[in-house]
Amino acid sequence: MKNFYIKDILPNQNIKLKCWIADKRQLKNNLFLDLYDGSGEIEALASINETENFVQLCKINRESCMEITGLSKKYKDKIEILIKNYEIIANSTLNIFPFPNAKSFNILSPKSSGRLLFHPTFYIRNRLISKILYIKAVFKREMQNYFWNNGFIEFEAPTLTRQTLYEDSGVVWINNKKHIGLSRCATFHLEPALLSFERLFTITNSHSDEKVKTNRHLIEYMHLKAEMTFVTLEELVEFAKNMYYQIAFNTYEKCKKIMNEIVGEEIVKNKLEKLNPKNHKVITYDQAVEILKENNIDFEYGKSLTTKQEKILTKKFNENFVWVKYIPYTVEGFMFKRYEKNKFLTMTADLIAPQGFGEILGCAEKITDYDDVISSMEDKNKMKDFERYKDFAELHKLGLPPHGGIGMGIERALKYLLNLDHVKYIKPFPVVKINQINH
Amino acid sequence: MKNFYIKDILPNQNIKLKCWIADKRQLKNNLFLDLYDGSGEIEALASINETENFVQLCKINRESCMEITGLSKKYKDKIEILIKNYEIIANSTLNIFPFPNAKSFNILSPKSSGRLLFHPTFYIRNRLISKILYIKAVFKREMQNYFWNNGFIEFEAPTLTRQTLYEDSGVVWINNKKHIGLSRCATFHLEPALLSFERLFTITNSHSDEKVKTNRHLIEYMHLKAEMTFVTLEELVEFAKNMYYQIAFNTYEKCKKIMNEIVGEEIVKNKLEKLNPKNHKVITYDQAVEILKENNIDFEYGKSLTTKQEKILTKKFNENFVWVKYIPYTVEGFMFKRYEKNKFLTMTADLIAPQGFGEILGCAEKITDYDDVISSMEDKNKMKDFERYKDFAELHKLGLPPHGGIGMGIERALKYLLNLDHVKYIKPFPVVKINQINH
Repeated sequence: MKNFYIKDILPNQNIKLKCWIADKRQLKNNLFLDLYDGSGEIEALASINETENFVQLCKINRESCMEITGLSKKYKDKIEILIKNYEIIANSTLNIFPFPNAKSFNILSPKSSGRLLFHPTFYIRNRLISKILYIKAVFKREMQNYFWNNGFIEFEAPTLTRQTLYEDSGVVWINNKKHIGLSRCATFHLEPALLSFERLFTITNSHSDEKVKTNRHLIEYMHLKAEMTFVTLEELVEFAKNMYYQIAFNTYEKCKKIMNEIVGEEIVKNKLEKLNPKNHKVITYDQAVEILKENNIDFEYGKSLTTKQEKILTKKFNENFVWVKYIPYTVEGFMFKRYEKNKFLTMTADLIAPQGFGEILGCAEKITDYDDVISSMEDKNKMKDFERYKDFAELHKLGLPPHGGIGMGIERALKYLLNLDHVKYIKPFPVVKINQINH
Repeated sequence: MKNFYIKDILPNQNIKLKCWIADKRQLKNNLFLDLYDGSGEIEALASINETENFVQLCKINRESCMEITGLSKKYKDKIEILIKNYEIIANSTLNIFPFPNAKSFNILSPKSSGRLLFHPTFYIRNRLISKILYIKAVFKREMQNYFWNNGFIEFEAPTLTRQTLYEDSGVVWINNKKHIGLSRCATFHLEPALLSFERLFTITNSHSDEKVKTNRHLIEYMHLKAEMTFVTLEELVEFAKNMYYQIAFNTYEKCKKIMNEIVGEEIVKNKLEKLNPKNHKVITYDQAVEILKENNIDFEYGKSLTTKQEKILTKKFNENFVWVKYIPYTVEGFMFKRYEKNKFLTMTADLIAPQGFGEILGCAEKITDYDDVISSMEDKNKMKDFERYKDFAELHKLGLPPHGGIGMGIERALKYLLNLDHVKYIKPFPVVKINQINH
């Protein structure tokens, strides 16, 4: 097993390191190498006088795997390796252009991003993508820590289901006739399990084949759902504010160096400060509609907010996070509880991130009463498929207490935090069109 | 929010508790109630003299949700509640038989288990199933802890993929023409990511629609895959022994009470002792075949072992865990490395649990060389679908170092530990036939 990594290198050591060539530049009799391994990056220098088989080394392709022996030296504020000898472990012979880690290649530029979609197997090793995925892994770990520390257990929701939160049209079906498809939301499976555990969370690969393509949606996405008993909308909002902030804060504590590198220290600190619960604003849907009117937006009452409209709201509140409470039932799931004072509205709240990052998460109180579920299913045209929802509906006759939940799109939550243009950079094998899958 | 749970109850307290009725028995003017909530179970007593609205309480259905007020009393080695008053939060009015938590109902009996398959929404709240699922959640958490503590990161593998580890026939397809289906194994996606991280694990909902139905297989199952660079088969076997033992041991430390209750203290301790790495036996496939011959079994060389044959092996070694090394390529994935001394065999090892619990996990060194991958794909009839595997094959031209991995079926690992008859008890929404899904 490998037991010495780049992260373990101290100055003035004789080292023997297994690593990969990210990039290289030859300057006469010197060869400058950018090396990487699973723990990080380091620069190395080979020269005709100091390095055995220097001429052959100059010819080795980028992305080859080598074991190098040499001396580590402090140079300014960094450590470098002076290569004495090397051995090739796995040659890179594929005719690939650009090389995934060529310094001149910017994987985030719009014209490059097809590489990630069509050849993720090669381009996932891009250093920037790797760092983003590392941050995502830490973010997921911090989610798990946060929920376990708050008395939740991680529950496994199924991928295959007959039930659909919204319209059937966005479902990835495995079987059209039987109405079995890939789950878009774990709600249907967390609610029955609430009776056993009362506090549950799950992190799933959810699927939604939306017709409209945006920079905030992938067909396969990482989805957090948490559900708890005896909770009000106001409590859910407070819980969710704190949750997102703490998870982001703890992730930054553990990934400070690479997050500063990717985002810029000032920007990421500003983003965290905006996430601080004390800076969130809470308004109602009706107030949001008023603000849009003030801005001469022709808005149809009962619809969802567009990205452009979300931008107007956060701008109004000094580019802070804005919660929109009491969303109309017309755009929400059928099991969401109605607002007592206006049954057109639901006991829900969505969190909108500033500067166009848009909706990140949502909270909802759920219906507990059977007749209310049936009436809501009638309103949402679900009764024609009653057989598919029968057991879920009847669960409301079986001691289901007041309860509510939170749903968050992980790629969106990180898109804001890492200041990225598109969620596809935060998914190792992104899918924007089903028939384009090449992995 | 609820902030007082059954687990918080001390003797001689005035308590106010939100909970559910699991079961109840009336004896003249006394009503004995089994109550539960998300944290555990407690017995309660109501009586005509001490409890307000006693007569109505006697009529309340099992599985109703109530808030009870009363006094906690120590009785022998347990705490009980004497109910003074109660309020119904959510009535149970569904005509359901048996009630999920009736004492007389044994959900593990073969004739009852259809309840879990056809009405998981109602029966997931069965106390025994809830405890098993709680243990599974802790087991998963301990897996995550084990891998993070050993320098791994949790990587997200996709659900949708074009690639198949074994035959296409067992795939759950979403799209037959395009060859896109649900992943059976994360191998194809962990290997490209190895270049970035070197040590990875993932826990997925994997899917395999096997034609043969056994008590060890579900169509949707929880699947651990770990992958690392620069590792030999012998190192993988040592790592996997220690991994399973430590995770099981740590799970027992956290779930001692309910595991003793479900399995029996002596049995579970014996099972853990068998898991201790010092008690594992390692033999080769050829030695296994010899042992079968000694037992007059007509075995076709090159096939997998059946459950019956696995039983003969573990019996031979005093019902200990047995590793079978160097499995023939005919029954392994195409990317598994061949054994230098006999190219019919692969650098793999499977762990067989004693007493018929069968195969739990497998380890494998993987091919690094492009020509070897192509030759193996030819042997396994994958070249007709080369387009689907092209990028994965070409990854072997791009600096892929020696590497290997471990795969474990979580339901199987827990089936052994919890001494259960069938994996379906360890999956909250089990699927044994696709067209029977009712969730």
